[in-house]
Amino acid sequence: MTCVVAIDVGGTTLKGGLIAPDGAILHRERRPTPRTEGPDRVIAAISAFVADLSRPRTVAGTLLRPAAVGLAVPGLVTSEKAVFSAAFGWRDVPAAAFSDGRLPLALGHDVRSAGEAELAHGPGAADALYLPIGTGIAGAVVLSVSLYGGAAGWAGQIGHIPVRPGGLPCPCGQRGCLAAYASAASIAARAGETTAEDVVRRAAAGDEPAARVWAEAVEALALALATYTLVLDPAMIVIGGGLSLAGDALVAPLRARLAARLTFRPAPEVRVSALGVDAGLLGAGLLARRALGQQGGGDVDDLGA
Amino acid sequence: MTCVVAIDVGGTTLKGGLIAPDGAILHRERRPTPRTEGPDRVIAAISAFVADLSRPRTVAGTLLRPAAVGLAVPGLVTSEKAVFSAAFGWRDVPAAAFSDGRLPLALGHDVRSAGEAELAHGPGAADALYLPIGTGIAGAVVLSVSLYGGAAGWAGQIGHIPVRPGGLPCPCGQRGCLAAYASAASIAARAGETTAEDVVRRAAAGDEPAARVWAEAVEALALALATYTLVLDPAMIVIGGGLSLAGDALVAPLRARLAARLTFRPAPEVRVSALGVDAGLLGAGLLARRALGQQGGGDVDDLGA
Repeated sequence: MTCVVAIDVGGTTLKGGLIAPDGAILHRERRPTPRTEGPDRVIAAISAFVADLSRPRTVAGTLLRPAAVGLAVPGLVTSEKAVFSAAFGWRDVPAAAFSDGRLPLALGHDVRSAGEAELAHGPGAADALYLPIGTGIAGAVVLSVSLYGGAAGWAGQIGHIPVRPGGLPCPCGQRGCLAAYASAASIAARAGETTAEDVVRRAAAGDEPAARVWAEAVEALALALATYTLVLDPAMIVIGGGLSLAGDALVAPLRARLAARLTFRPAPEVRVSALGVDAGLLGAGLLARRALGQQGGGDVDDLGA
Repeated sequence: MTCVVAIDVGGTTLKGGLIAPDGAILHRERRPTPRTEGPDRVIAAISAFVADLSRPRTVAGTLLRPAAVGLAVPGLVTSEKAVFSAAFGWRDVPAAAFSDGRLPLALGHDVRSAGEAELAHGPGAADALYLPIGTGIAGAVVLSVSLYGGAAGWAGQIGHIPVRPGGLPCPCGQRGCLAAYASAASIAARAGETTAEDVVRRAAAGDEPAARVWAEAVEALALALATYTLVLDPAMIVIGGGLSLAGDALVAPLRARLAARLTFRPAPEVRVSALGVDAGLLGAGLLARRALGQQGGGDVDDLGA
């Protein structure tokens, strides 16, 4: 059976999988992202993962033959290269650096491709923001049922809008960015925890410093979403990524604070993603499908390794 | 000769005119907006202006017969009603309230219709923000050569994005809105002057308080434009309205501050509008043309009053 390799490159984890033409995830595998060891080690880890997942393998008695690779990465990215990532410190990495050249590989933006997966598989709205929150924050801007990329494809960098001018420093070089307050990584670091989940748990148990960090994160998100709403008037905002696992502890106060920030218009619907953390993997799978399509016709089975 | 009535409703001035099918402005007239006398007086002043301009008149030996009315108003607006304006304090004013019913009248958003005029007549870019700054601030969001209105038509309310959370109060009920720092009206009021031009002149002459107000206005604009750029990646930002008359005194420091706020991507081009203060009138003219089109075929000359 033909499938595609999908890899969603996250700040702490590389999420890989093999995906069937109908979108079913046939195989899953995770590896740590060696982010602290520098950009070259991250690139080497990704290309080794690509090579390993590209080999035919038998799962539950079925031979799976990968035909293309979809690679979703954070930061600024074109179909030719990974231009910049604040999380990894890389600049202008060509798509070929991630591949051994045996299968066609499509490079894309993690959040935009995850947004395409939400649009393809989730409930969705014609005009929506899909905002995964994990190590960083970037949004997929859905306008009139299409993903909008901007003049150069760099739209959606919501994590670096200045919600608190002169505020906390951000790895991007600015101060007061949304991500410095509200990314899962920032929330954990500010409260001296390993994960944002720990912070939510401590806050719920009445711990004052954790509750303050959490409230500041929710308020920063409310400011950013109020701005997005005033500029683009979306019908729905979907929070995804690891932070969305906080569920009502996130969405209930966020809805209230967003409504309080919008005096003369109603707030759009705010919900957590239905696809959850699979959105990134399914989005990378859609990228791989595109790589197959661009290669042109024929039976995709002929492209097996 | 058939023409259309165009009225651009501003916070201090009602700008009216008669516009030829080719976009030439055949007649101009201005009246004060009785804003301080309450919403009912403003509505009465607009409908009297509509009635007066709708009468046939001879200009330079040519009989001009108006065939439709285009009315561009600020705030939240649909084609049926003026929903809300912080400047005028009105709520849910039906389009019929502005008309005596003799000519078809099209109601529209002042900034979006001015943006359509910029798109139709100016240099423009496929992905741009057109941002007129006068009594208030709202933007026309141009995406892929089309004006984008959002899910309910309320996109572009950039004047009320929270650039300084907890900052200066705004008539909308929030604090720290862009308009509280950078509208021409706010700049003048903060420096104790009648117009923003006076503030720019005093700042240029070395007056410290005026220079501080001006610098805070430019910085607030830079924050808002950095946010817009990160979210939507425009190729061009066009500043219009009265404040655009400041020219280089506005654009030079704004370009520098915007670039400084964007660490990992280039800034889009920033320029002042080529149509200047006529953009609003020409935009209202485009609304009137639409009212004619919606009425259906026939010789528009038959529609003369």
